[in-house]
Amino acid sequence: MNIFFVSDLSKGSIALNKEESRHCIKVLRLKKGDPILVMNGKGSRFHAIIENPDSNACQVTILDEERRQGDRLYHLTIAIAPTKNIDRFEWFLEKSTEIGIDRIVPIICQHSERKEIKTERLEKILISAIKQSGQLFLPELTPPVPLKNFIRQSFEGDKFIAHCDAGEKRLFKDSLSTGKNVLVLIGPEGDFDSVEIKLALEQGYVPVSLGESRLRTETAGIVACHTVCLVNQ
Amino acid sequence: MNIFFVSDLSKGSIALNKEESRHCIKVLRLKKGDPILVMNGKGSRFHAIIENPDSNACQVTILDEERRQGDRLYHLTIAIAPTKNIDRFEWFLEKSTEIGIDRIVPIICQHSERKEIKTERLEKILISAIKQSGQLFLPELTPPVPLKNFIRQSFEGDKFIAHCDAGEKRLFKDSLSTGKNVLVLIGPEGDFDSVEIKLALEQGYVPVSLGESRLRTETAGIVACHTVCLVNQ
Repeated sequence: MNIFFVSDLSKGSIALNKEESRHCIKVLRLKKGDPILVMNGKGSRFHAIIENPDSNACQVTILDEERRQGDRLYHLTIAIAPTKNIDRFEWFLEKSTEIGIDRIVPIICQHSERKEIKTERLEKILISAIKQSGQLFLPELTPPVPLKNFIRQSFEGDKFIAHCDAGEKRLFKDSLSTGKNVLVLIGPEGDFDSVEIKLALEQGYVPVSLGESRLRTETAGIVACHTVCLVNQ
Repeated sequence: MNIFFVSDLSKGSIALNKEESRHCIKVLRLKKGDPILVMNGKGSRFHAIIENPDSNACQVTILDEERRQGDRLYHLTIAIAPTKNIDRFEWFLEKSTEIGIDRIVPIICQHSERKEIKTERLEKILISAIKQSGQLFLPELTPPVPLKNFIRQSFEGDKFIAHCDAGEKRLFKDSLSTGKNVLVLIGPEGDFDSVEIKLALEQGYVPVSLGESRLRTETAGIVACHTVCLVNQ
């Protein structure tokens, strides 16, 4: 059945937003009385019925809950430098959402070539990915933040920095514990610079390696996300 | 240093192909006497010197070996249905090459919407990915083959089918043994049909699950590739 996203879901009658209304009425040509599913990215999915098939603000009546998903046993944040080619960053967002992630923090680093992102378009990719993959939780995408500010923020869990610089590093998979919250830093195309790495280590980040291959930024992000997923599987 | 790919690498003097010559001379503007690296995707990388900077057939002299990479302890084949949107299949090729894969077999299934691929363009993606990731082995990309023919071929190692149909399935990560050759089948957007699954099981393929999330074809391919990599790390 077709699934629609409503950010503010409440019992009773609600309206789909303009984009979802257009998709529902103009593209899928659904009619009054047709059954649909709605979700708000917070763990539940509901049955609903189209009341007023308006392609600008389609009115629907929420019926009973169809499915509920509990929280994961861990909370995963990946703080990652947006790539110069935005397609690669979008691809990371889609794939990490499919695999399972809770929070994505775009970090601006010394070697970042891209310092801005259009959050609205990226939000749509996340929503589309949860609909497609059957996940009921929408990952949080924060505004971009300079790395040096971000690493000073507190975090309840294990903090890692995956960098390619010299120095002793354990394998990421061997550094993880089941059921613990994880925060991983993934650098830009030119990697973190040595000052950034030093600052992160001072803030308690543990240096880790994702393996022997030299991975692109977005690949490193996916590999880190999937490693945490697999260790907790 | 700039790396160039030469499929037929021998000691002495050789010519780069037209595309690599153009890149070397027109794009990078390298001159006679400039040092470069050349590789053939078979485990070695050599120092070389530009002898004749011809942008159609740049002549280079091969010097000593710069780096050699041993074979992985396992051989990984992923037989995967090309996606309707070829970009998604290309992503899979690039990412699995970065992570580590030996052979990619495009399979044509009952539910395949795409039954043809342009191997030449895809080869270029593989070459670009090994250059970028520092891998010295070029994965083999075979011509497309109907699934029903492919699964009758013999394979020295463990064979798996990752499908979303009902039935008892172990987690893929728990089904793998370190150092063993692996072959995994990944289905098209509409999954394998029940006849295909039955045939694969008859041929000794073990049904496995990649986890609870419903993954797109290319994501399933990457996740399978990384799972094998991680278990062998």
